[in-house]
Amino acid sequence: MSLKTLLFRGSLKGNKFINFVPIVARNQYERRQNNTRKLLGTTSAFIFSSVAVGLANEKNKSKEEIIEAGTKRPDLPTYRAEEVSKHDSKSSFWVIYKNGVYDVTSFLPSHPGGEQILNAGGFSIEPFWNVYGMHKTAEIYTLLESYRIGNLHDEDVMDHSDHELWVKEPYRDKRLIVKTAKPFNAEIPPKEQVEHFDTPNELFYVRQHMPVPELDEKTHSFKIYVKGVNKQFEFSLSELDRFPRVSIRAALMCAGNRRSEMNKVKPVKGLNWAGGAISNAVWTGVRLRDVLIHCGVDLEDTEGKHVIFTGADMDATGMNFSTSIPLHQAVDPRADILIATHMNGVPLPPDHGYPLRAIVPGAPAVRSVKWLESITISRDESPSHWHQKDYRGFNPSKTWETADFSTAPPVYSLPVTSALCDPVDGDTVNVKGGCVTLKGYAYSGGGAKILRVDVSMDQGQSWIEAELKSDPAPPRQHYSWTLWMLNVPVKRGDTKMEVWVKATDSNFNTQPEKFDDIWNIRGILGNAYHKVKFNVKHN
Amino acid sequence: MSLKTLLFRGSLKGNKFINFVPIVARNQYERRQNNTRKLLGTTSAFIFSSVAVGLANEKNKSKEEIIEAGTKRPDLPTYRAEEVSKHDSKSSFWVIYKNGVYDVTSFLPSHPGGEQILNAGGFSIEPFWNVYGMHKTAEIYTLLESYRIGNLHDEDVMDHSDHELWVKEPYRDKRLIVKTAKPFNAEIPPKEQVEHFDTPNELFYVRQHMPVPELDEKTHSFKIYVKGVNKQFEFSLSELDRFPRVSIRAALMCAGNRRSEMNKVKPVKGLNWAGGAISNAVWTGVRLRDVLIHCGVDLEDTEGKHVIFTGADMDATGMNFSTSIPLHQAVDPRADILIATHMNGVPLPPDHGYPLRAIVPGAPAVRSVKWLESITISRDESPSHWHQKDYRGFNPSKTWETADFSTAPPVYSLPVTSALCDPVDGDTVNVKGGCVTLKGYAYSGGGAKILRVDVSMDQGQSWIEAELKSDPAPPRQHYSWTLWMLNVPVKRGDTKMEVWVKATDSNFNTQPEKFDDIWNIRGILGNAYHKVKFNVKHN
Repeated sequence: MSLKTLLFRGSLKGNKFINFVPIVARNQYERRQNNTRKLLGTTSAFIFSSVAVGLANEKNKSKEEIIEAGTKRPDLPTYRAEEVSKHDSKSSFWVIYKNGVYDVTSFLPSHPGGEQILNAGGFSIEPFWNVYGMHKTAEIYTLLESYRIGNLHDEDVMDHSDHELWVKEPYRDKRLIVKTAKPFNAEIPPKEQVEHFDTPNELFYVRQHMPVPELDEKTHSFKIYVKGVNKQFEFSLSELDRFPRVSIRAALMCAGNRRSEMNKVKPVKGLNWAGGAISNAVWTGVRLRDVLIHCGVDLEDTEGKHVIFTGADMDATGMNFSTSIPLHQAVDPRADILIATHMNGVPLPPDHGYPLRAIVPGAPAVRSVKWLESITISRDESPSHWHQKDYRGFNPSKTWETADFSTAPPVYSLPVTSALCDPVDGDTVNVKGGCVTLKGYAYSGGGAKILRVDVSMDQGQSWIEAELKSDPAPPRQHYSWTLWMLNVPVKRGDTKMEVWVKATDSNFNTQPEKFDDIWNIRGILGNAYHKVKFNVKHN
Repeated sequence: MSLKTLLFRGSLKGNKFINFVPIVARNQYERRQNNTRKLLGTTSAFIFSSVAVGLANEKNKSKEEIIEAGTKRPDLPTYRAEEVSKHDSKSSFWVIYKNGVYDVTSFLPSHPGGEQILNAGGFSIEPFWNVYGMHKTAEIYTLLESYRIGNLHDEDVMDHSDHELWVKEPYRDKRLIVKTAKPFNAEIPPKEQVEHFDTPNELFYVRQHMPVPELDEKTHSFKIYVKGVNKQFEFSLSELDRFPRVSIRAALMCAGNRRSEMNKVKPVKGLNWAGGAISNAVWTGVRLRDVLIHCGVDLEDTEGKHVIFTGADMDATGMNFSTSIPLHQAVDPRADILIATHMNGVPLPPDHGYPLRAIVPGAPAVRSVKWLESITISRDESPSHWHQKDYRGFNPSKTWETADFSTAPPVYSLPVTSALCDPVDGDTVNVKGGCVTLKGYAYSGGGAKILRVDVSMDQGQSWIEAELKSDPAPPRQHYSWTLWMLNVPVKRGDTKMEVWVKATDSNFNTQPEKFDDIWNIRGILGNAYHKVKFNVKHN
């Protein structure tokens, strides 16, 4: 049963229920049915899948520890669902959660996910939170309860169980470090990162915004729309064979990688990634450029145009995930952007976009859209919430109140970064031959090559160059990560060590020392020096 | 009279003199005459034109203040030139300066210009210093005198006056801030930088390694050699008309810009540039790519190949200035590399390469070779000293003893930087309407665009976004500088202000806070925050 069916199956459950489906969402569904996506896209804004997660730390992960909201409160009045449904405007905005009724009118302006919340006006937020599972934290339940005004009448309480939405999620390797289970977001363990130059598929970090869609390579097709000239093309997967097959080794990194370090300066919103939201693989497919040329896209007329990628993954309102990149980047032969079918020599696993995904090397991984359903050439960037209201850069003084996403530049490339992966913070390491071995990664976006990784054991007083392992056969630019290794001597008697790591790329950009001055509300682009403390044991 | 003629005219002055011309230099001249440049290039190393200048500060500029070396010392023995000429090996190495004889054997390993000094063994260093004029500082004279062993016999003392080498230098605008007169190196005044988006030609900063060659556009031609296939092409300037003419707006910045700030951390070697070694202009010419395609260069076989640019400017040994860039960069249509004839709409001024120069946007300006004489497609980088022994990146712990130029990566792109130009450090500024206006520039190499300039008036506690002025019609990548402006409020009673400036580019790289961890022996790539203190006056 598809997500769409599930969402709307609910509306047939009872007579009353139909009244509670918010009009906005219903209209959206109808428009979608009529294939008029454009209006939907430009008039709606959608929750960040990761918005609320920054508030949760790893200790709050297990269900046992989460304080449930929405239990009955005998001290408060009771409302019928019909009464609640009237409060669906910005001037009076109520929502339902289980047995609870909440007046969140005053919360609306500070909802990190923007106006997406309006879709839940006068209605239960449970269907939304079932998709945006990261809301389910003790902090957010507590916040919700602070807006509590009453109880929902027993007859109107419904079961919004999320079981079926997630039941078909793929099997995941138990070594992955789970940040959120629904949607599934998980890091590769740091020591596994440096064990393999190309990350094994089952250990590749996973970043989902929604449930993993079920697709079949035999029946899946993707469409290319060229806006303005009203052209449309459709390709089955086997029809892609007409284009030359290409393999590109590229790391994918979430723009929020290392957010947990930025979080220590001042809390930010987003998945609390350590350094494990980056992995490296060889991607095989066809060049986006070749496909676009085949479709007649004018390579000389790219200025101000965008390529919108849309995936098959879908949010609570029936909106597909979507983001875009500039067309000039899409057709640049040196950018090596792929429509990929394979990852490290085998078909893409479901968690990584089976059967088809975009690979935009050097860009934040969000642009490498999974479960690719369509590509649109447009005068506008993707209107989706994920594109418009996330993955944009701000300075440290911008707050959720003052940040203007509409004028902030989208992140299409990533700055130089590096990390120590082995040992990790707090480890105790055996000294061998008077030395300990340090291993880590370095990476820079936009095709830049890592030229140098410098390690300091004395808080920046002196720096030692690490030994580098780069892509042995890079394409025209550098998209792979670089692994590094360094043996550092340990003095007899030393029991504690502190490592600072920083990398320099081929533009000779290097990392800032501290997170303070690159801090930003979304906690992205966190590339300050990696500073790790560990213990040493002399045998 | 050419530089070459001048250098060797000296050898005909007297019978004895011919014995003193060092054999190495004489052989080089003869080889050059036989057009066998290759051996010359690979077996010689040449002084940095700017090597010694870091030791001199601006106070030492005027001739009056310089303590002359080489005066007679009655306390020391006298040597005949013939005797001195025998000491021309690494095991015993003497040189002459005016009346002085010096045993600099022990100095050889630490000569920053490497083995070029060997050309002066047993001979006068004056002809060399006449070309590498930056040696003429009080510090270097003092250093030289510390190696003094005797006096040259009166009959052997010669006039090595440098008058004629420099007499035909072009007229320079008096507003330029001269760092060294011979060769001429001068900054644009900071307040002039922000007055013009395209710097007027007469204010464009000047960076010379040698005297300005005299060339004529009517007779000048340049050659293209394709090594390996033994192809050779020659173009007069009018023959370039067969290629489409292109204009590209690009800043040129010396890799050593802002070296004076790095110098404050720990002394470095090189011209003591403040922030004035960057200017912006519109360059017009033909695409290098088009010319190379015309010459049959295979665009698909660029891996590991280089484009060597050779200029008409020549050092004391008759060696032309030369450096190289990777071939894949040279033929990348998005790199927009030009063979330029015009600067801001008029023929290139002599100081900027008349009649022909390479323009390599986004790269350190040294790659934009002036007075272009030839282009060589080669399996090797330029063998010249300027390419092999300069403009390479090192970490802060590398010393002249430990730095290995042969394995260090050449600098082909520049990191993100910014500066406040008005007011400058120590200025007193009138408060108008409760505010002072700050103006500056920002720039990033490799085609990256400046997305944001952040200004802090409280040492990084908070940051304000400045208003940006970018190239209104950039080519496919961004090569122009960005000017920025910001009005900051001043509290009544405040008399002193401190500004911190940092920029963020389209790869979301930003500047490091301090120079400490990017310090390097050559003082290049100095892109830490610009920190300026000034006074305010309330009316």
